[in-house]
Amino acid sequence: MQIAEPLLAAIDELSKLPSIGKKTAQRLALHLLKSNIEDVNSLVTAITNLKTKIHFCKRCYNLATEDLCDICQNAKRDQSLICVVEEASDVIAIEKTHEFNGVYHVLGGVLSPLSGIGPDSLKIKELFKRFEEEEIKEILLALNPDTEGETTTLYLAKLIKPLGIKITRIARGLPIGGDLEFADEATIGRAVLGRILL
Amino acid sequence: MQIAEPLLAAIDELSKLPSIGKKTAQRLALHLLKSNIEDVNSLVTAITNLKTKIHFCKRCYNLATEDLCDICQNAKRDQSLICVVEEASDVIAIEKTHEFNGVYHVLGGVLSPLSGIGPDSLKIKELFKRFEEEEIKEILLALNPDTEGETTTLYLAKLIKPLGIKITRIARGLPIGGDLEFADEATIGRAVLGRILL
Repeated sequence: MQIAEPLLAAIDELSKLPSIGKKTAQRLALHLLKSNIEDVNSLVTAITNLKTKIHFCKRCYNLATEDLCDICQNAKRDQSLICVVEEASDVIAIEKTHEFNGVYHVLGGVLSPLSGIGPDSLKIKELFKRFEEEEIKEILLALNPDTEGETTTLYLAKLIKPLGIKITRIARGLPIGGDLEFADEATIGRAVLGRILL
Repeated sequence: MQIAEPLLAAIDELSKLPSIGKKTAQRLALHLLKSNIEDVNSLVTAITNLKTKIHFCKRCYNLATEDLCDICQNAKRDQSLICVVEEASDVIAIEKTHEFNGVYHVLGGVLSPLSGIGPDSLKIKELFKRFEEEEIKEILLALNPDTEGETTTLYLAKLIKPLGIKITRIARGLPIGGDLEFADEATIGRAVLGRILL
């Protein structure tokens, strides 16, 4: 096959991205080839800025462009309510709901002994330092509802309890638009246990 | 929603690419954010090289890094057999089969009066210049089997016929792995008409 080398290189690099296969990478590369140079340059600049302008917030380890992230800097947010999440993408997911007015703490992962991720690999020490330095009234554990998220939730709850801080977790139940018939037993079980008074 | 501005910008730029929606763009941006700087740089370089290092072959309008593309430069290819295609991506598709040993001519589109694309918008004049300057024995029309491709095929065939050059087109029929039961009538009709002797 005789394809121009820079095109092959671009297809190769693009197909390294998650969820982009060889065929999609080729379509993207040919699209970029046809796009005008300004559009390609603004894409390249945006990608470069990602690595040069974004770092981690010194307090909550969310993505930030300055020392503290926008949320930590925002005086209107309730600084005494911390929501603990796994990754910065979870902050985005929760922010999109507009239902949470506290601040965050990004762990950078969950406990997973099989992959060699123990408490020291996560930002747990940094979370406890915040309990000492800030006035925290409530901690909301919002980790993913899988085995590792569950383990980490229980681990953190056990450590935080002696400090006398209110601990909550996000509700489990049927997703909006879900169907009882097709939901799994564990989810229905949790929904029944967690029933709320109308 | 309070998301770091460079991340929003990157999501915005990535979602302009074909087949990349907002969610995929966000996943890609967060992936790039986590990747190490060398990987991101090689992606950025590959994209930049696409626009700076690739231009069109002066003879066949395929993608090239020099004046002539690799295929036109290759002495082992049959330079008297030209395959006419719509886009450079079609060259890649045919090259992948390893079944064609001639050279190409990329039209840069097909006739489409409704979109204002007439013969002058395509590299048709350039194709006829090649008939004068080179010794062409056969021309293989490999345009897409849709209305516009069909129209362009008939238009070209009519123009080329008086020159006494052998004109062929790629076969229509059932795709490999296809099923008679589910094929449309037009395709089955073409397959019957184009039956070949065993």
